Amino acid sequence: MTKGDADCRETLITVATPLFAEKGFNGVSVREIAGYASVNISMISYYFGGKEGLYAAVLNKQFAVLKRVAEINTMESDPLKKFELYVRATVARYRKSPYLLRFYTSELTNPTPCFATIVKPAIQGVVKILQETFADGLSHHQFREGLDPTDTALALAGMINFYFLIEPATGELVDHSPERDEELIQHIMDIFSKGVLK
Amino acid sequence: MTKGDADCRETLITVATPLFAEKGFNGVSVREIAGYASVNISMISYYFGGKEGLYAAVLNKQFAVLKRVAEINTMESDPLKKFELYVRATVARYRKSPYLLRFYTSELTNPTPCFATIVKPAIQGVVKILQETFADGLSHHQFREGLDPTDTALALAGMINFYFLIEPATGELVDHSPERDEELIQHIMDIFSKGVLK
Repeated sequence: MTKGDADCRETLITVATPLFAEKGFNGVSVREIAGYASVNISMISYYFGGKEGLYAAVLNKQFAVLKRVAEINTMESDPLKKFELYVRATVARYRKSPYLLRFYTSELTNPTPCFATIVKPAIQGVVKILQETFADGLSHHQFREGLDPTDTALALAGMINFYFLIEPATGELVDHSPERDEELIQHIMDIFSKGVLK
Repeated sequence: MTKGDADCRETLITVATPLFAEKGFNGVSVREIAGYASVNISMISYYFGGKEGLYAAVLNKQFAVLKRVAEINTMESDPLKKFELYVRATVARYRKSPYLLRFYTSELTNPTPCFATIVKPAIQGVVKILQETFADGLSHHQFREGLDPTDTALALAGMINFYFLIEPATGELVDHSPERDEELIQHIMDIFSKGVLK
């Protein structure tokens, strides 16, 4: 692939991302995407085989960041600190990818064929790491017995993900600015750790 | 309004609900709704003033259930028990309204004009009740000092709402069936209460 090829391909993904995020897969035409990208419409077939392929490329790029959650296993060994790294990574992800939450929620509530191939494996990968982290802490008697690893993993994920989902409705009730992220992370980890530690 | 009038109006709302939920406001035509409802297309203008009015009626019905969260103030005085009633009400809401989560997430991520008039006030109403409940517990020294009422309210709301949002991705990792709801409620209240109590 020459530099020009890569540029055109990347431009199409960059242009298509907000369009798909705001209008959904069915609300966007290849003609519209090609127009905004200032490329010939045939380039979408050439690089992606069609609209489905371009949408899949957009989702692959959006959800690739979830794979980086696996890095917490190489960065830290203490389960509670791993959970904190997960919360930090989640906050950073939403701050860096303004469209991720829309793809995330629209694929969960109105799935396209990409849900089974891209979205679900990415989400399950994160949940499994959190499950294993909790099970590890349980086996070392760090966490209270009786807590279910999956329910606990989803409870932590819920606390941080929901904060970003609800932001448009609660902007006047709570300061959602990035400057307060550190306080938010400490607050969630405070409730969670007291909730699960022995 | 005669019985027939009310029937036609209700039929249009019932038929339009899954269509708007699955295809979004822009993905559905009044012709399509009238066709599925087996009524003349002019009835949508007659009863609702157009597609916007019908969509608003659908959202009003979906989000009216959130107003019932206010009832926890009349049913219980202990803050922690009020939180448990909120969690129970949230679970019951999702079990009874299979389309609520789609309207909830799509309005939060891609708002229509109804977001400001219907969705946001409904969500803020719930968050304010949870804030007040937590502040009440704080003032009675039931909860740990230093916890922020709004962040804590959103943390609890996140634990239970996210469980339903994530279900399509985690169905193989955790049993999301209604039979396990009681266990889920106890589990969330267990983590939350240990996380916030003095």
